[in-house]
Amino acid sequence: MFEQLGLIGCGLMGGSFALALKKAGLVKRVVGYSKSPTTTERARQMGVIDVEAPSALLAVAGADIVLLAVPVAATGATLKSIKHLITPQMLVMDVGSTKADVVQAARTALGQQLGSFVPAHPITGKELAGVEHADANLYRGAKVVLTPTERTLTAQLHSAQLLWLALGCEVTTMSPQAHDAAFAAVSHLPHLLAFAMMHSITGQLHGEDYLQLAGPGFKDFTRIAAADAHIWRDILHANRSGVLDQLQHYRQALQAFESALQASDASALETMIEHASAARAQCFTAPAAPGLPASAGLPSHD
Amino acid sequence: MFEQLGLIGCGLMGGSFALALKKAGLVKRVVGYSKSPTTTERARQMGVIDVEAPSALLAVAGADIVLLAVPVAATGATLKSIKHLITPQMLVMDVGSTKADVVQAARTALGQQLGSFVPAHPITGKELAGVEHADANLYRGAKVVLTPTERTLTAQLHSAQLLWLALGCEVTTMSPQAHDAAFAAVSHLPHLLAFAMMHSITGQLHGEDYLQLAGPGFKDFTRIAAADAHIWRDILHANRSGVLDQLQHYRQALQAFESALQASDASALETMIEHASAARAQCFTAPAAPGLPASAGLPSHD
Repeated sequence: MFEQLGLIGCGLMGGSFALALKKAGLVKRVVGYSKSPTTTERARQMGVIDVEAPSALLAVAGADIVLLAVPVAATGATLKSIKHLITPQMLVMDVGSTKADVVQAARTALGQQLGSFVPAHPITGKELAGVEHADANLYRGAKVVLTPTERTLTAQLHSAQLLWLALGCEVTTMSPQAHDAAFAAVSHLPHLLAFAMMHSITGQLHGEDYLQLAGPGFKDFTRIAAADAHIWRDILHANRSGVLDQLQHYRQALQAFESALQASDASALETMIEHASAARAQCFTAPAAPGLPASAGLPSHD
Repeated sequence: MFEQLGLIGCGLMGGSFALALKKAGLVKRVVGYSKSPTTTERARQMGVIDVEAPSALLAVAGADIVLLAVPVAATGATLKSIKHLITPQMLVMDVGSTKADVVQAARTALGQQLGSFVPAHPITGKELAGVEHADANLYRGAKVVLTPTERTLTAQLHSAQLLWLALGCEVTTMSPQAHDAAFAAVSHLPHLLAFAMMHSITGQLHGEDYLQLAGPGFKDFTRIAAADAHIWRDILHANRSGVLDQLQHYRQALQAFESALQASDASALETMIEHASAARAQCFTAPAAPGLPASAGLPSHD
């Protein structure tokens, strides 16, 4: 149980985290700050936060847990601005989708305070950003990857693990580099491919007409293309080399399909589709295993 | 109201059509045939069909409506096998995802009987094929494209329109060529891209580990990759030139993203993502407008 959450960034991810902590009875008070005062005010009106802070630093004052839910490129400046109120007892986390850049920014910004910081990436989201879409159940059942540095204090790491478990998440720990390599493959490149899909069609003479005919398959395929431009600009840029590397792998796979089509090689085509179909089916057979192990020692109220 | 549906192919699409017609009270009896006797038997046990036919031809005998729900490449041979029982009063439709090849096969196979055939493409589906996933509501709210030939009888075309409207669909008519060009863009290429995504990852040393971390975004993006290999081999092959054409457009769009990333041009990246995000949001703002216009004159029982 925490006394006070200092929330920096009251959007979808931050707002949902505050609501989830409140719902689980894990925090007494939430002090929030957003760059846009309108957002902070709306968050308070919605009951997402209890108190509006006029700055990131003041959101941290008196907190025993701090969550940064800002675009990844803003991590360094934000950490720097709150640094001198970070205590060795405080748990500080982010929710960024890239981790090598976040860890690097934290090293530079935090110095001696680095031990309190546990870089976190909860694998969840919605295509609609903003506090008005905040949802107490957004994190339930989600995977959460923690990428502690060699300086992260074990007490903080353990506390972070228990917290996410208590929110119904499946917690994994890995290096920032391994994280970024994996997410270039299963998240960042797919977003880029979905963005490119929209461009490819809207750039055509009859593109608008084509889109009128799009069905549920296209709808699911392009759901991630509706993501926030600012956030995704930062993510793709932060994991630039990982994404470019995955793009090379992808081009090769695409080329194999194109060659089979050009050669009218129906048998090769079928074999390749069978392989893809089986891999996709296998990938999502076992549901994520959320839930609260008895040993977690934290209450869950739903 | 039809007396008897002759259903050729009792899988997901055919089975769901039979169930939908029954639910809407639009048919008295369904006689079904599938290439696999096991499938036909299961369809009867499930109440999807009432009578098992030992051949496609015998499924057509006595029917006033016939639905072909077979892989598109099997359309020509199937139509040929039932040709001499097709009457000028009968409504014959397919549900294939490509139309130029289907119309060409119908011209060759049907000759004088071509007038009874209304090529149809309902834009719906599930990633799970087979009669066990048949669903009376699969077509509800779906778009249906009809691609009549110049020889299609207006009575049959009108009857087909009323029928799909009565099932809660939104009906559009266009040429087979326009259909195939549009669906290369919004369905066939996206499937190919999703198949390639699975190949790209599983082909990598740590691909299996990466897939363990896949979240809801990847799940939606690759849902269509779980499609049936036989059916999609046929579709991609049948609309080969359309798909290859769309692939060229797509490569250009992808290249623009890659160039922006390589140049670390965050501003260009953000503009491109904003455009994609807005196009995706606009594409699916208005829900499909299902429902039964008063003028349709057919009963709807749900």
